[in-house]
Formats: sequence, C-alpha cells, structure tokens
Amino acid sequence: MSALERASVAVIGCGLIGISWAALLRFHGHDVIAWDPSDAARENMAEAMEHPLAQLRELGGGQTATGRFSIAPTLQQAVRTAQIVQENGPERLEVKRALYRDIFAAAPTDAIISSSTSSLIWRDLAAEAGTDARRIVTAHPFNPPHLMPLVELFAADDAVRQRAAAFYRGLGREVVSLRKDAVGHIANRLASALWREAVHIVAEGIADVEDVDRALVHGPGLRWSVVGAHMGYHLGGGAGGMAHYLDHLGASQERRWASLGQPALTEAVKEKLIAGIGAETRGRSIQDLETARDAQLIAILKAKGGLDV
Amino acid sequence: MSALERASVAVIGCGLIGISWAALLRFHGHDVIAWDPSDAARENMAEAMEHPLAQLRELGGGQTATGRFSIAPTLQQAVRTAQIVQENGPERLEVKRALYRDIFAAAPTDAIISSSTSSLIWRDLAAEAGTDARRIVTAHPFNPPHLMPLVELFAADDAVRQRAAAFYRGLGREVVSLRKDAVGHIANRLASALWREAVHIVAEGIADVEDVDRALVHGPGLRWSVVGAHMGYHLGGGAGGMAHYLDHLGASQERRWASLGQPALTEAVKEKLIAGIGAETRGRSIQDLETARDAQLIAILKAKGGLDV
Repeated sequence: MSALERASVAVIGCGLIGISWAALLRFHGHDVIAWDPSDAARENMAEAMEHPLAQLRELGGGQTATGRFSIAPTLQQAVRTAQIVQENGPERLEVKRALYRDIFAAAPTDAIISSSTSSLIWRDLAAEAGTDARRIVTAHPFNPPHLMPLVELFAADDAVRQRAAAFYRGLGREVVSLRKDAVGHIANRLASALWREAVHIVAEGIADVEDVDRALVHGPGLRWSVVGAHMGYHLGGGAGGMAHYLDHLGASQERRWASLGQPALTEAVKEKLIAGIGAETRGRSIQDLETARDAQLIAILKAKGGLDV
Repeated sequence: MSALERASVAVIGCGLIGISWAALLRFHGHDVIAWDPSDAARENMAEAMEHPLAQLRELGGGQTATGRFSIAPTLQQAVRTAQIVQENGPERLEVKRALYRDIFAAAPTDAIISSSTSSLIWRDLAAEAGTDARRIVTAHPFNPPHLMPLVELFAADDAVRQRAAAFYRGLGREVVSLRKDAVGHIANRLASALWREAVHIVAEGIADVEDVDRALVHGPGLRWSVVGAHMGYHLGGGAGGMAHYLDHLGASQERRWASLGQPALTEAVKEKLIAGIGAETRGRSIQDLETARDAQLIAILKAKGGLDV
C-alpha cells in the first residue's frame, strides 16, 4: 500500500470529516466508496466534496483528483473490496463497536479499520474485537482534514501501524505515532491545556476573548507553526539549549505552572466567552470565518512547502 | 507620535532583544541611540544589527532602513532626547528599578519608558517610581521581536497606553493590550500551559519530544497561526458556534482539563527532555535551527500579508 498505489478506500460516515477525507483520498488517486446511515448525507456527499476538492486543486497548483467515487447503498457493499476503511461515525463507543462488528463481517480480512476518533482511544474501540483488534487503528486528523497535515496514529500491532503510516504519508500527511494511546491523543491534549489558560485569562478579566486570540495568532501560534514547544525552549536556552534552559529557568517554569488557572465553565464564564466571541466575529458567519481561515491555511501551506525546520 | 513621525528612541540593553528592537526601529525610520553597561555589547551592536536588518529587508521586499543609529557612552546621553526608551535589561526587579531612577532623571519629562520584560509585571516595576509610574509601560515582544508581530502592552495610564500602542502599530506590530497586568502577560501564560502538557506527554511515555513538536507544528500550531483558541472552538461548534460548543462539549472539556498532567521537572524528566531534543535536532546547531526557523517565519509572514481572519 505504497504512496503510488491506487487503493480502494471505504469512507464510513459522511459528515464534515468524512467529506474532507473522501476529497483528500480522491485527490491522491484513491478510489472511494462512501456510506452513511442517513439518506440525506449519502445524497449530499458528491456535491459537498466539490469545495474541499477545489481547495486541494488550489493548494496543489492545479492538479485534479483522479480517484473514482461512488456511494454504496449499504455498509456491507461499501467495505466489501476496501483495503482501508476510514470510519468517521459518531463519538459513541457502542455505535463504533457495532459498526466494527459489521465491517469485520464484510470487509477483506486484511483491510485496516481506521478510526478518525478524536475523543475515544484505541483500547476501548478494540476491546470487543477479539483477534480483529490488531486491524484497528486510530488515525486522528485535525480539522479541516484535507488542509491540516497532521494525522495522529495509534495501533497495537506495529506492522499494521507501519502500513497505515505509509498510506497516510502517501496522502501528504504528517504522521505522528503515539507510543501509548491517550485520550485526546497529543494535539487535543495540548489544545485543551492551552484553552484552559485562555479561559482563565478571560474569566479573570486579564484580557478579552479577541485579544487572547490575537496574542496567540501573532505570537506563540505563529511560532508553533514553525517550531514546536520543546524546540522553542531549546532555542530559548541560548547556546546551551534545553539543558541550559532547564537548569536556569526550570524552577521559574514550575512556579509559572503553579500559577496557571483552573477555571470552571460556570454560567458567568460561558456568558463572557459567548459575548467575547461575538465581539471578535463582528457578525461574520461561521461559513465566512471558515472561508477566511482556509484561505490563510492554503497560503501558509504553500509558503511552507519545501521548507523544514 | 504617529506611525509617520521620525522618533528618537533609546534602546537600553544591547542583548538579543535590544539588537532586534533597534533593527526594527531603524527599519521603520526611527533614530536609535543605544546603550549597554557592557563595553563589549556596545561595540558589538552595530554589526549584530546587520542580520536582523537583512531579514527585515527580505520581509519588506527590498526596502532599506532609514533610521540613524549611534551608541551612547552613558545611559544619560542615550536617553536625553528620547521620546521612547525601550528597556531590555536583565529580568531582575532591583536592576530595572535602578535603571528607571537614572532614566527618569535624564530623559525628557514626557518620554515613555517601555519595558520588554517577559517575567516581571507593571505594578512591581512601577512600585517605587512615584509620579513617574504613569510613564512606565510594559511592552513585551515575542522572540525574535523583529519578525514576530506580537507586542503585549500594559500601562496604568490610558493616554500613555494609547500613545505607546500607536507607536508600536507604526512598527507593523500587532498590539494586544492587557486589562490587568499578569505574570507572563497572555502569550507566555498560554505557552507555559501548553508546555506543561507537552512535558507530561513525554514524561508519561505517550510520545517522544520530536513527535510532540511535530504534532503541534502540523496541527494546532499551524491552525493557531490563523485562528485563535477561542475562535477554534467557536468554529468547532458548527452552526451554533461557541454557545453550542459550550452546551454540548463544555462538560467533556472540563473532564479533559481534569485529566491533564501536572509534571515536575525531576532529573529523570529533564534527562528525557534533553535526550529527546537531542534526537530532534539531529546535531544541528542552535544557529542553524534559528536560521531555518526565521526563513519559515519570513515565508509565512509574507504569505499572511493582507489576509486576515
């Protein structure tokens, strides 16, 4: 299942994440068969893919998608010839486990079942799968998946993980493998930790929602789009790097950690957040904001092309 | 002190931050007089500015710096005609307070004394300044200051804060004003919160240093270079935005917060971090890493030019 091979991929669940995956898969030459229990979602799918496909064309300098696309009337028909099943079902354990039982019964015995789950973990998803557990992978994309490069991967079986990693790298993804499964994988744990302090800053009246966002976007966010947090402290340590930083500023960092907030999402805090985001959006719709976000992401991804730190 | 005016700016402290400020100020047409208690720092300053000035020329499409530059033999001579004094001294309260006494005695009575401090706060810096306290501003840049747009501002006097904000906006900076002073301002509080979890993930063996950094750079970091954390959850709430997100996922976010780590920088953890950054850097020097970082920052800043979310 190399980057060059044309794979047959079943996309199960045709919400935003499924639509985005399907566009990315087709753009990279894979054949997609999609299924969703909702008639409306199945009927909407082909048209809904046009927008992410247009964005991928823009990002890819005009290259067009070559993968075939079809909608299957049943789950069984969707997965029957699949080498990869990308599952984007609801984030409920019993729903996913039931899906997996049906998938294992109908899919080829060597197909990988790959979950986009953001909030569930491998060991819970695989707990009732018996010997099929080794075929289950968590492959968490970051929204919007067709633009954001990150895929966080976990699998208990290393050979399966390596096959999956090669497949996602073939989609131009930056694959990060976890050594242990963890709720929120890596990225959402980091995001959650940061947002807790962002909420604290608003709750304490240190700064408004919009100003916290601006500080992040023009400060640490911008820098983290280039160098990670660990590397940032390594570079902050001068010629002595991380070791120097830890020796000289480790204790002050621990004091800073002790001073961070532990806010609760009380009604008063929720009202502040909602009012603050209202001020920040200035009446722009979610769709307008997403369009602006995606235009910037595409511009930045183009700018980053070929440059690596 | 509008963006168009040619101001006289004293740069006090000629380490990395002072050098970067001086380059940015000259690039935007201001006249800089610099001083540092160290002979070596004063002698090094003119040459050290060449590199950030070259980067600014690259970022600015060839435009060259027009501000004059000189080194003053004494603090008094550096600040005598200054409209803004940008102080970049050591992060020790007693050192800064002593500097301010000397500055107030020699600078024009309407000069603003602006501290680049990252770890001290306004009320401590101003505590012994008497009626001069209102002229003190904290203006925290993000490293490297000539490339990173963020300046976090706090002043007790709103008219002074507005003058300072206009001045920094004239340098092409994104100015964020705090309503209350806080240790770490906004950006370093957010960075500290995120790094705590990044250290936890390494300490717990969930992922390596390099993989945590890769997940951040290709996931949340990239997205936070475009939309802030609050806006991210607003967009994650679908058509209902932040209100919908808080109603439906607020409780699960609070559970996630409760599950975040509280690591200590023990010797074992420090060793893991140092070994991990060693693996990530693959022998590249701090200077090589900074050069690569800056090249990407410049490319991204160019790509973002004119696009706003």
